[in-house]
Amino acid sequence: MDVQIKTGELWVGIDNGKLSELEVRSFLSHDNAGAVCIFAGTTRHVTGDKETSRLEYDCYPEMATAEMERLGRHAVNKWSLLKVVVHHRVGEVPVGEASVLIGVSSPHRSESFAACRYLIDTLKATVPIWKKEIYADGTTEWVGTKRDSQSMDIHNR
Amino acid sequence: MDVQIKTGELWVGIDNGKLSELEVRSFLSHDNAGAVCIFAGTTRHVTGDKETSRLEYDCYPEMATAEMERLGRHAVNKWSLLKVVVHHRVGEVPVGEASVLIGVSSPHRSESFAACRYLIDTLKATVPIWKKEIYADGTTEWVGTKRDSQSMDIHNR
Repeated sequence: MDVQIKTGELWVGIDNGKLSELEVRSFLSHDNAGAVCIFAGTTRHVTGDKETSRLEYDCYPEMATAEMERLGRHAVNKWSLLKVVVHHRVGEVPVGEASVLIGVSSPHRSESFAACRYLIDTLKATVPIWKKEIYADGTTEWVGTKRDSQSMDIHNR
Repeated sequence: MDVQIKTGELWVGIDNGKLSELEVRSFLSHDNAGAVCIFAGTTRHVTGDKETSRLEYDCYPEMATAEMERLGRHAVNKWSLLKVVVHHRVGEVPVGEASVLIGVSSPHRSESFAACRYLIDTLKATVPIWKKEIYADGTTEWVGTKRDSQSMDIHNR
């Protein structure tokens, strides 16, 4: 169920398998880039006082990529970016691996940091992707985006 | 003249050849990392209204790595980071390649962005590394850090 949207300056995707940081880095290259900022959100072993054994993500890929594309275009225009990547992995993501990968290249570094931060914060708040925490003690918990708590309820029925 | 300082949580270096983003990414992995932020400063083709064909960097490696280690330790302590990488390449850096690579991993993303930004800004301001711009029209220009304009004068004699 991989869904990808790729243009000259923007590459967004929902991926079933491991995210390729090499491919992302390669896409971000540009002769006028003086700055490349990459953010990876990875599964960590401990969240609060609970041990996580893995995370699972689920989404409606077309809805998610449409929103990711909207955010990416907004960022390209707002900060005059050269390249933008927004990728999210779905399915199981083991400890240490990336569930989300954001990349930005721009002539100067301020824009690359600002856009990268904007993209991960806004993705977490608005893109309809749900996260299931699978704890080491066998319990599980679904966590959704703020905007989509209603969709998540539907999704969980 | 590669000089490296590598401990469990901090890896700083002055490198003669191409910086390995793969090795940097691998060093940043940690089971409790929920966030990895990487910044690369790359040679761009156009600076202002001049075409750059390549950049050259030079430094006193021991002085530079000592200062990079000091900044790295400060960041680890200030933001409770899991891993920090600060690498700078010296010698010729062609258009599109990275002269500097900063990497940070931490449990949450705010700290990773703040520390990464602090490290590149402070490195540029305080680490004694000089940059020579080689323009397409054949002219050249040395550019130093603010603090080291005096050392740069000595260096250029």
